[in-house]
Amino acid sequence: MPITEQQQLSELIEQKLSELKLPASPALLYDPVRYTLDLPGKRVRPFLTLTGCGLAGGDIEESLPAAIALELLHNFTLLHDDIMDGANTRRGEPSVFKKWNANTAILSGDAMYAKAFKQLQYYGRNDAYSKKQYADILDIFLDSAERVCEGQAFDLDFEAREEVTLDEYLRMIQDKTAALISGSLAIGGAVAGAEQHIIKQLQTVGQKAGIAFQIQDDLLDAIADPEKFGKQQGGDVREGKKTYLTLLTLQQCNDQQRKMLLQILSSSETSTADIKAVIELYKELDIINATREVIRRYYEEAMKQLDTFEPSEYKNEIITLLNRLISREY
Amino acid sequence: MPITEQQQLSELIEQKLSELKLPASPALLYDPVRYTLDLPGKRVRPFLTLTGCGLAGGDIEESLPAAIALELLHNFTLLHDDIMDGANTRRGEPSVFKKWNANTAILSGDAMYAKAFKQLQYYGRNDAYSKKQYADILDIFLDSAERVCEGQAFDLDFEAREEVTLDEYLRMIQDKTAALISGSLAIGGAVAGAEQHIIKQLQTVGQKAGIAFQIQDDLLDAIADPEKFGKQQGGDVREGKKTYLTLLTLQQCNDQQRKMLLQILSSSETSTADIKAVIELYKELDIINATREVIRRYYEEAMKQLDTFEPSEYKNEIITLLNRLISREY
Repeated sequence: MPITEQQQLSELIEQKLSELKLPASPALLYDPVRYTLDLPGKRVRPFLTLTGCGLAGGDIEESLPAAIALELLHNFTLLHDDIMDGANTRRGEPSVFKKWNANTAILSGDAMYAKAFKQLQYYGRNDAYSKKQYADILDIFLDSAERVCEGQAFDLDFEAREEVTLDEYLRMIQDKTAALISGSLAIGGAVAGAEQHIIKQLQTVGQKAGIAFQIQDDLLDAIADPEKFGKQQGGDVREGKKTYLTLLTLQQCNDQQRKMLLQILSSSETSTADIKAVIELYKELDIINATREVIRRYYEEAMKQLDTFEPSEYKNEIITLLNRLISREY
Repeated sequence: MPITEQQQLSELIEQKLSELKLPASPALLYDPVRYTLDLPGKRVRPFLTLTGCGLAGGDIEESLPAAIALELLHNFTLLHDDIMDGANTRRGEPSVFKKWNANTAILSGDAMYAKAFKQLQYYGRNDAYSKKQYADILDIFLDSAERVCEGQAFDLDFEAREEVTLDEYLRMIQDKTAALISGSLAIGGAVAGAEQHIIKQLQTVGQKAGIAFQIQDDLLDAIADPEKFGKQQGGDVREGKKTYLTLLTLQQCNDQQRKMLLQILSSSETSTADIKAVIELYKELDIINATREVIRRYYEEAMKQLDTFEPSEYKNEIITLLNRLISREY
């Protein structure tokens, strides 16, 4: 069987990740970083950076440092998010927060953040990149890093609020999830030296796909096989998180249903029966199908933007990835 | 009374900090950042950046973005350290961790980190700086950021270990405290476009002064007026932290004293009587004076390096600051 383009890209990413020279000491700092990077991740973000670079006509191997920077940035946010969410598992394994403790997860997250930035120094020390290009690359990275924090802050804030509109929710996930997907594609374009309008297009593809991706994640919380998904079913409901599904339900349900849902979301001891009741409510109000329809709409918007690019193997790879992401069952 | 150079520099720093355009929303993210920056800080690091730039012959106003970046980086580490240390107060006021909660302190720390990097984009977008200079500035910043994390990891590791040598301790504070002091001076030199050997000299001044500064901080934990110091007396002992004083004591005490000290350090419920007993032990073994002597030695090494610079107002300012820092009583 011939090696597909996708396999080649994945191998490039894993190879580059394995070449990260993480010091042995302090073990307290770098063991959790190694542990996290060794978990079976989908590597969506570095994959998007490589294909974004290829799509913009660049040499994909040149975008590897940026790709790794984005993967490190993403993993840094996971380490810290797992503390804030009290999440015991990540990718089906104990989270760093659970396996070690909160302090270790804070600190090794911080170290990953610095390591992410360090990857970008490749463009600062390589004469093939102009100062402007180097600054552009850093700008895209910083913008993503900042928006992820802002999105997470809104998410925490929403947990404490009773009323959140779907519009507010969509703005939140644009920051919390889509900004990193968008930045991953755009930074590939910046490495390729693409013109501003091309980088902008890549950003839009990422924005739309990122929103679809997050709503799909919300959906999986309700419908996925927990064994495969690596998270408990209804974990979001248990944590009282507002998701696309809960907010849509609140918009469409009657007073009695509303009362029940809000009670379950605000409860600190959610039972399995509670989770079942919420999922029943989703079925009753056809929330699952309505959510699938919204995902499909954002996906199509991403595809429409992608259509402005000439056909290429990289374009095919992005389409394949996005298809897989938004139709995944876990 | 004429405005001194020192006042002018402080005003420049406060002015620039007040111009930081922190968004109003998400309030959960930026309110703690504003709160932290409004606490009465000594602004040691930005002050060192400005004077380091002046010492290397640069235009000090040009080093303001770097100075602010270092102050933000420093404050980011404080937000996270306070969580890890369970510290309820900072600069005499409730820590962010205490006033809000751990999640808020994690997340607003992360946001400060990104804001710190963003300051350095000034050098990326200003044609007066070459690409090499811009990359050098980022390298110094990244090196400091990474070493602070490594130092904090060693510090946490030491808390869990019974045996730590004074040499290990000195290496730890070189990362945890001195790296940022050193980086603050060096980045000023880099902004000034100083040659590598000048930047190296500034780094050494900072390294030595930083070690003196940290040991002075350890000393103040034992001798300072808690009202003025803004921390409880013996807080380090209470937290079971290894400090220069405890390690020197362990090196010099008899078996009985050793047993007592280790017991107090490992206890989770340290009483005021315990703290008093440790301080008595310090007096008995002349630990306070021996510590003062070590501080003096590092201070003199810093001064010796500083002597290689021509006399200037900036040199005087650095000397005045270092004198104040290592002779402070709180």
